[in-house]
Amino acid sequence: MNGYAVAVVGATGAVGTKMIKMLETADFPIKEVKFLASKRSAGKTVSFKDQTMTIEETTPESFEGIDIALFSAGGEVSKKFAPEAVKRGAIVIDNTSAYRMDPEVPLVVPEVNEAALKENKGIIANPNCSTIQMMVALEPIRRKFGLKRVIVSTYQAVSGAGNEAVKEMNEQAQKMLDEESIEAAILPVSGDKKHFPIAFNVLPQIDVFAEEGYTKEEWKMTNETKKIMGDPQIKVSATCVRVPVASGHSESIYIEVENEEAASVEAMRDVLRNAPGVVLMDDVADQVYPTPLEAKDKKETFVGRIRKDLDAKDGYHLWVVSDNLLKGAAWNSVQIAERLHHLNMVKSEATK
Amino acid sequence: MNGYAVAVVGATGAVGTKMIKMLETADFPIKEVKFLASKRSAGKTVSFKDQTMTIEETTPESFEGIDIALFSAGGEVSKKFAPEAVKRGAIVIDNTSAYRMDPEVPLVVPEVNEAALKENKGIIANPNCSTIQMMVALEPIRRKFGLKRVIVSTYQAVSGAGNEAVKEMNEQAQKMLDEESIEAAILPVSGDKKHFPIAFNVLPQIDVFAEEGYTKEEWKMTNETKKIMGDPQIKVSATCVRVPVASGHSESIYIEVENEEAASVEAMRDVLRNAPGVVLMDDVADQVYPTPLEAKDKKETFVGRIRKDLDAKDGYHLWVVSDNLLKGAAWNSVQIAERLHHLNMVKSEATK
Repeated sequence: MNGYAVAVVGATGAVGTKMIKMLETADFPIKEVKFLASKRSAGKTVSFKDQTMTIEETTPESFEGIDIALFSAGGEVSKKFAPEAVKRGAIVIDNTSAYRMDPEVPLVVPEVNEAALKENKGIIANPNCSTIQMMVALEPIRRKFGLKRVIVSTYQAVSGAGNEAVKEMNEQAQKMLDEESIEAAILPVSGDKKHFPIAFNVLPQIDVFAEEGYTKEEWKMTNETKKIMGDPQIKVSATCVRVPVASGHSESIYIEVENEEAASVEAMRDVLRNAPGVVLMDDVADQVYPTPLEAKDKKETFVGRIRKDLDAKDGYHLWVVSDNLLKGAAWNSVQIAERLHHLNMVKSEATK
Repeated sequence: MNGYAVAVVGATGAVGTKMIKMLETADFPIKEVKFLASKRSAGKTVSFKDQTMTIEETTPESFEGIDIALFSAGGEVSKKFAPEAVKRGAIVIDNTSAYRMDPEVPLVVPEVNEAALKENKGIIANPNCSTIQMMVALEPIRRKFGLKRVIVSTYQAVSGAGNEAVKEMNEQAQKMLDEESIEAAILPVSGDKKHFPIAFNVLPQIDVFAEEGYTKEEWKMTNETKKIMGDPQIKVSATCVRVPVASGHSESIYIEVENEEAASVEAMRDVLRNAPGVVLMDDVADQVYPTPLEAKDKKETFVGRIRKDLDAKDGYHLWVVSDNLLKGAAWNSVQIAERLHHLNMVKSEATK
């Protein structure tokens, strides 16, 4: 049978399980799948297209014969095994932050910078979840009106911190509904010094704190935007906040455009109505706007509440929602694999 | 016994019950309390300083002999009964939006514009919850560095929509935890055409939609800020969002200051550390920042995550949290009453 041999590293995680799901309907031929994880998860089973597959421990040899390797098992695992996969002829699509800012590694949102795929040397990085959906919404606006500046406040789902974090939220929520006392051991950041409850709460910290009082998550939105849009001049200043939502990141985005004469709310709606990967949901007269519950399990990025800043000629607000595990992670990765296939960029013996 | 006769209108509501609580520790003498509500709630009992009080139906005659009347039973009730209370010699502190933009009515946050109390003609308006905490945090900055512009995204608690909305959220949350189907009948706005679930969700609509695609809540933040700060030039552009939190509004506030030379993160911290009604919680090295769960039942406004916009000389971010039912409503109202007492502005026979 013709097709690619595809490996998923981190197959038991929140993103990995969605990668497997996305591979079931990917538009490229698959002759073999291999689902990899840590030693601890080896032996567990997952289903793929009605087959029961056994998870294997990740080793360098796991990648023998693999054409496409999707990684989502943390930065350290990617750093250790991605080069091993590349060495054995695979193309790696890495969902961790390990290689994102590496100048040798393309950072790709297919709707925005598919052409960058051609510069890959074996590894392609999948951007941060909160960055991806912002890019899908803003790139059509940037192309049409120019983009000077972005000020963004996020409303990020707990699944971005993994399945254990969702479990913790649900347990806390149940205890609070029962008026019992609660504990926190994971969020805001697993391994950080302090932990706070997320159920019926809001935490203004995602990832650890870094330079200038910004978190790493906030820095990612700034730096990854410049790299993906290929414009180091774009100003991005972010506040990243965790909310008690299981799946679906929301973003309140304020932008300043270059061509204020051409821009208008209606012109932006026209651009977004026809933009790839975007669904415009913007009719406030009928209360039409996106919410994370409705975006769940959908691949698109939903945009609504487009408004003019009435005090600034160049300022606009947008409300952008997407399933963080899909477009924010698993779907963007599998979509990159689809584009690589269509561009004949997967080095597979089987399909030659 | 000396002291004021105080009435609370809307005594069974989310805010009214907190007003009663705040009156228990108010620093002015109270000789009599009268707790009023709709006919439907008349006959219910509430406790006040260990006494059991019976709720009475609100009528014009309810205000005979009343010195201070606190209203929080919806705009229509205030429009109907506030003039009746004033006619009978009471000073009205109104927590609804009925009189906020009336040029004859002072709109007061004591930390910001206490002097405006002197212009009252019987009615004083309590600002919108999301506006109040923003004013407490920004006024010290405005006085020290000047304030040109505010871009704010809110994370507002469900109790702002009333006790029934909180009950709906909790019921939805329980059903979602039990993997049962859910219904929505109240939020985003009771009486609006459509309703959406708030449990484990985020709704970018608070109050109904008005001009230019902004909601009334968003317009309130813009217009009330200009009135409270006494500066029609201040630009405020808001995105108001409901989050599944019972109590405590959070705000991601971006500001541009006038005196960019004098301003710095450290200078802002110094100003806020000594500001009335503010608690500075800003030490990210130790993960110190405010959250709504921690702000619950506290009167202060908590400020953290003060950061410089690294791309703009005049831009700063702040994260501002307060209990929306206290500083956002009940406490600000009782605090106004306290100030009126200290300014000898309550027309009471009993205390003359």
